[in-house]
Amino acid sequence: MSELRIGVVGAGLMGADHIIRIQNRINGAIVTAVVEPDEGRAKSAMENAPAAKWYPNVEAAIADKAMDAVLIATPGQFHEPVLLPALAAGLPILCEKPLTPDAASSLRMVEAEVATGKQFIQVGFMRRFDAGYENLRSLISSKDQGELLGLHCAHRNPSVPESYHNDMLIFDSVVHEIDVVRFLTDSPIETVEVKHMKRNSNNHSGFSDPILVLLKTKSEVLATVEMNVSVKFGYEVKTEAVFENGIAEIGRTSGMTTWFNGQISTQEHMSFKTRFAAAYDSQIQRWVTATKQGKIDGPSAWDGYLAAAAVEAGVKALNTGTLQNVEYAAKPDFYK
Amino acid sequence: MSELRIGVVGAGLMGADHIIRIQNRINGAIVTAVVEPDEGRAKSAMENAPAAKWYPNVEAAIADKAMDAVLIATPGQFHEPVLLPALAAGLPILCEKPLTPDAASSLRMVEAEVATGKQFIQVGFMRRFDAGYENLRSLISSKDQGELLGLHCAHRNPSVPESYHNDMLIFDSVVHEIDVVRFLTDSPIETVEVKHMKRNSNNHSGFSDPILVLLKTKSEVLATVEMNVSVKFGYEVKTEAVFENGIAEIGRTSGMTTWFNGQISTQEHMSFKTRFAAAYDSQIQRWVTATKQGKIDGPSAWDGYLAAAAVEAGVKALNTGTLQNVEYAAKPDFYK
Amino acid sequence: MSELRIGVVGAGLMGADHIIRIQNRINGAIVTAVVEPDEGRAKSAMENAPAAKWYPNVEAAIADKAMDAVLIATPGQFHEPVLLPALAAGLPILCEKPLTPDAASSLRMVEAEVATGKQFIQVGFMRRFDAGYENLRSLISSKDQGELLGLHCAHRNPSVPESYHNDMLIFDSVVHEIDVVRFLTDSPIETVEVKHMKRNSNNHSGFSDPILVLLKTKSEVLATVEMNVSVKFGYEVKTEAVFENGIAEIGRTSGMTTWFNGQISTQEHMSFKTRFAAAYDSQIQRWVTATKQGKIDGPSAWDGYLAAAAVEAGVKALNTGTLQNVEYAAKPDFYK
Amino acid sequence: MSELRIGVVGAGLMGADHIIRIQNRINGAIVTAVVEPDEGRAKSAMENAPAAKWYPNVEAAIADKAMDAVLIATPGQFHEPVLLPALAAGLPILCEKPLTPDAASSLRMVEAEVATGKQFIQVGFMRRFDAGYENLRSLISSKDQGELLGLHCAHRNPSVPESYHNDMLIFDSVVHEIDVVRFLTDSPIETVEVKHMKRNSNNHSGFSDPILVLLKTKSEVLATVEMNVSVKFGYEVKTEAVFENGIAEIGRTSGMTTWFNGQISTQEHMSFKTRFAAAYDSQIQRWVTATKQGKIDGPSAWDGYLAAAAVEAGVKALNTGTLQNVEYAAKPDFYK
Ligand SMILES: [Mg+2]
Ligand SMILES: [Mg+2]
Ligand SMILES: [Mg+2]
Ligand SMILES: [Mg+2]
Repeated sequence: MSELRIGVVGAGLMGADHIIRIQNRINGAIVTAVVEPDEGRAKSAMENAPAAKWYPNVEAAIADKAMDAVLIATPGQFHEPVLLPALAAGLPILCEKPLTPDAASSLRMVEAEVATGKQFIQVGFMRRFDAGYENLRSLISSKDQGELLGLHCAHRNPSVPESYHNDMLIFDSVVHEIDVVRFLTDSPIETVEVKHMKRNSNNHSGFSDPILVLLKTKSEVLATVEMNVSVKFGYEVKTEAVFENGIAEIGRTSGMTTWFNGQISTQEHMSFKTRFAAAYDSQIQRWVTATKQGKIDGPSAWDGYLAAAAVEAGVKALNTGTLQNVEYAAKPDFYK
Repeated sequence: MSELRIGVVGAGLMGADHIIRIQNRINGAIVTAVVEPDEGRAKSAMENAPAAKWYPNVEAAIADKAMDAVLIATPGQFHEPVLLPALAAGLPILCEKPLTPDAASSLRMVEAEVATGKQFIQVGFMRRFDAGYENLRSLISSKDQGELLGLHCAHRNPSVPESYHNDMLIFDSVVHEIDVVRFLTDSPIETVEVKHMKRNSNNHSGFSDPILVLLKTKSEVLATVEMNVSVKFGYEVKTEAVFENGIAEIGRTSGMTTWFNGQISTQEHMSFKTRFAAAYDSQIQRWVTATKQGKIDGPSAWDGYLAAAAVEAGVKALNTGTLQNVEYAAKPDFYK
Repeated sequence: MSELRIGVVGAGLMGADHIIRIQNRINGAIVTAVVEPDEGRAKSAMENAPAAKWYPNVEAAIADKAMDAVLIATPGQFHEPVLLPALAAGLPILCEKPLTPDAASSLRMVEAEVATGKQFIQVGFMRRFDAGYENLRSLISSKDQGELLGLHCAHRNPSVPESYHNDMLIFDSVVHEIDVVRFLTDSPIETVEVKHMKRNSNNHSGFSDPILVLLKTKSEVLATVEMNVSVKFGYEVKTEAVFENGIAEIGRTSGMTTWFNGQISTQEHMSFKTRFAAAYDSQIQRWVTATKQGKIDGPSAWDGYLAAAAVEAGVKALNTGTLQNVEYAAKPDFYK
Repeated sequence: MSELRIGVVGAGLMGADHIIRIQNRINGAIVTAVVEPDEGRAKSAMENAPAAKWYPNVEAAIADKAMDAVLIATPGQFHEPVLLPALAAGLPILCEKPLTPDAASSLRMVEAEVATGKQFIQVGFMRRFDAGYENLRSLISSKDQGELLGLHCAHRNPSVPESYHNDMLIFDSVVHEIDVVRFLTDSPIETVEVKHMKRNSNNHSGFSDPILVLLKTKSEVLATVEMNVSVKFGYEVKTEAVFENGIAEIGRTSGMTTWFNGQISTQEHMSFKTRFAAAYDSQIQRWVTATKQGKIDGPSAWDGYLAAAAVEAGVKALNTGTLQNVEYAAKPDFYK
């Protein structure tokens, strides 16, 4: 199958990051267009996308048939003027969250998509792809520990830029929990309420954070969200789920910790396939990349020989019960 | 840049797994040849490699110019007859561990490679690509906690197939620690000794495991390796490093746990870029794959609208200090 | 100094437990009176207090000069009629929480104590004596991580008896957090609000739990308290503290876990004195108890000999670098 | 029952510590004699034992009938001359480890005790009283996870005094594992072997540590002991037990961590009785001590009143669903 030709709209931080991702880590896709009014920014991002062409606006890229699909990475207020022509052109779209900044404009996008008769738009709520949230959602829908009763979420940032302002606490940050609470519970959010914790003096932008947001779903699950953008220690996103019979937490360990039946547990691997999945992927990806440059990027034949010599001594040690010295040939200059 | 055309030699468990990996997760590479004497096994694996052609032996694939590079995934005793023609053909090679089963044959491979004047061979010691081992190696070479004094390794499998036999404890399993101990210490292993723990009656193959292997490097680091292939609970590979001033452990948590200066610590994220790296990659990869099939595979525009409506209520709740109800339009049948 | 003679008022669950504690684990005190209208219950508890005499009411015990101090372990509504005569008699009092069930009666107790001119009453908010809360309070007052901004508390019980009813969520259970939030913040609670999580069907008493209680202190710290009395998995009491620069949590590990400067940490011991403090205490206490019964309760001289023999071999192994067999004399029947 | 009158022999670090323990935390015992040739050291320790009398040697204390039982806290080489007269006098003895420094003298002690016809001697291997070791021993004898196959022990000290020398690695430090390995396995140690890790340059005493001691029991359990006395980070004593079906570790968390059936688990409390056992004990002990001094040492009646006022508001908040302000009376000067 040929490569999917992607046009990335917006070459700021997120756009530039997505370009690197598609070029270096995503299989079966290639960046062929960068849509960005600022030519300097576009050209800088395009250093990581040798096959891409620059377009100042999405209409020009569409007219040029420059892409099979669109990834929108501009700020939310600029999504609508990209979404509409892309939908009109019948292009699949991955649109960074939020879809648009308010409900009325989002509903217009929904209506525009419905009018095409096909689902073209996917929204970039990437938490749904995080293993922790996936595990937690499965646990909730399994009802293994009874009904879900509540969620305690925390979203903590070490700091935010000067440009970050009060309402962004909700529309830029809590929006993730707003999506994920519904994703986890499969029930719409019915009420929202905001409480203030004591103000953090690290926040130099004048507004008051952290806040505590109370979300209640139609299914009566109460979710508390601590939204905290100035807490220097690090970046933490976690959710503790309260079931009728137990507790589960994600985001603090890899995977999930559970409090069930008097035991606090995390899951152990059962095979090297999961334990070393990332290592295998990384090994092959780095080898592919190095090979294209006429190099290797990992253990050499000499490493293989050294291991073979020690293994041979090891087998002898195993079979004789005695200490074995390992003898090695001299290392060729070639490997130095 | 065009795709690297890979010939996979051996379509058993590991080979079939690598084919899926290259097709689905590795960027910039494609499987174009499957070299495997057993036609049925080859054809079965090739279901995941639509662009691949079957060859009964590596010479045929080379003659056909079927590949730019070779990935060898046969058992170790069959590596030499593949390595030699591939080297002769000037093909880059990723060779699953071990390079070959004994020191004499491994040294022949080294000599054959040296004779070509270029490094073509990389050996598949994939642990070097595991984040834990990478972190630990950096810590050791930094000498932040003084010299490394010893390593306590454990390699635990729930069970092994009937065909697994005594010497494989060393050449198939401990071989990983043999490579990684040298990788971590940058010093060759000088002596090997094997002790027996009490025999595990879960082991139905007649030999005695678990064993304790003592490896001593030239740099005087003593490594203990518990090799345990019958301990039902799960699959665990871990290493505890003893420094002059502290302790570090990998393989039990993601990343590394340290015992330094009276504190037991793991590292926290400092940015969403690391916290959600895997989620972003997974999101884009699944979207690319779905898009090629004319679908989406993630949150829809309707999800985007629902979030926008709740965000709007949330901003109002923030600014008024009151509880806000969230109102939604009716869900179009289109999204049901 | 002679033993403090304690009168325990109430021989129900808590009272009986305190009697055992004072007799078996508390140094310098002895139970000399059990005040309890139910004679059977009194006599049953007195099996663990051989020096105690039974009194049907506190006035009788006071008249008999039966005690130097009073420990009140009856339900809260019966505290006032014990507190007043004990205060009048000038007896030191440890009064289980709550002091009394409502503010007006508590204020009367305060006024009665003030009138005596001396502090006789201590209230049994035992969380203040928990190492976790002590550590957290020190951290808060140190301001090492900036100001405290908020607290997330959870108090989870596997189940409660049928007699437990709705208001007890607050006056019997949340009362602990009400005290401890003030203890931690050194600031009075100014507002209280209660939200409901989805109802737990494990709760067969008809009321709705879990609840979320929002406490705001005068110092503007917001504390959330999940009060959950039907969550089968176990008994958990934890508090997560949100500071300007970091996070600390108590109640999940022994001691405290901190999220500071990109590190998630717990404290390591620095000496055997803390690592084995409880073991030393337990050893001596059990030896004292056994000695009074003409027995030992721990390793015997024979154990001491066996260790000496192995140590001797070990020193030889250390000094020769060889494997040493350990030889033992035959075990005397005496130790069998 | 009257207090057990204990004579403490040796008023060095350990002896002085035991005196404080018996006076302040041990129920039913009192220090009535301090046996110590160094009068200054004796008098200093006796500041914590107001009822004790000083004796320069044990014979004098015995002649004076100064004690009901003896606690020996001198170095091991001085135990025999105290043990023999104490045995002759028929006094119960708690003897700090080791019983004596070598096997021959230990066997003499055993024979002397056997000759009395009664067990008078208990040896101070206090690890047997540690909750972790107790849990692990129960798990081993239950055979719930199959047979025990091996043990990995580590005993790590931040540093040792200048006077600490090579053989003390075994007779002073590893002696604990020598006892506890037999305690855990109920099988004598048959062979001992010592390996060296790389030397720690923190060790200024000239000998080489850390060492790895291999202990093999008659039951074929192999125990590895890392003995490490110069590793600055802290004090850690841990044991990892390898069973046929799983793994258990003690000494890193409170209690025990297990790797069973694909789950990594620690035990949760099921009741406040275990969760707050130490807090209850501490509360009562501190109250008893304060009461004897005419004080309280914990929450006052005023704290009780403040809680009652907030509880009252909380119950109202629960029953009305509204935010409640808490009103307080003015604080009497009396409590300031
Ligand atoms: Mg790509
Ligand atoms: Mg590929
Ligand atoms: Mg007592
Ligand atoms: Mg005492």
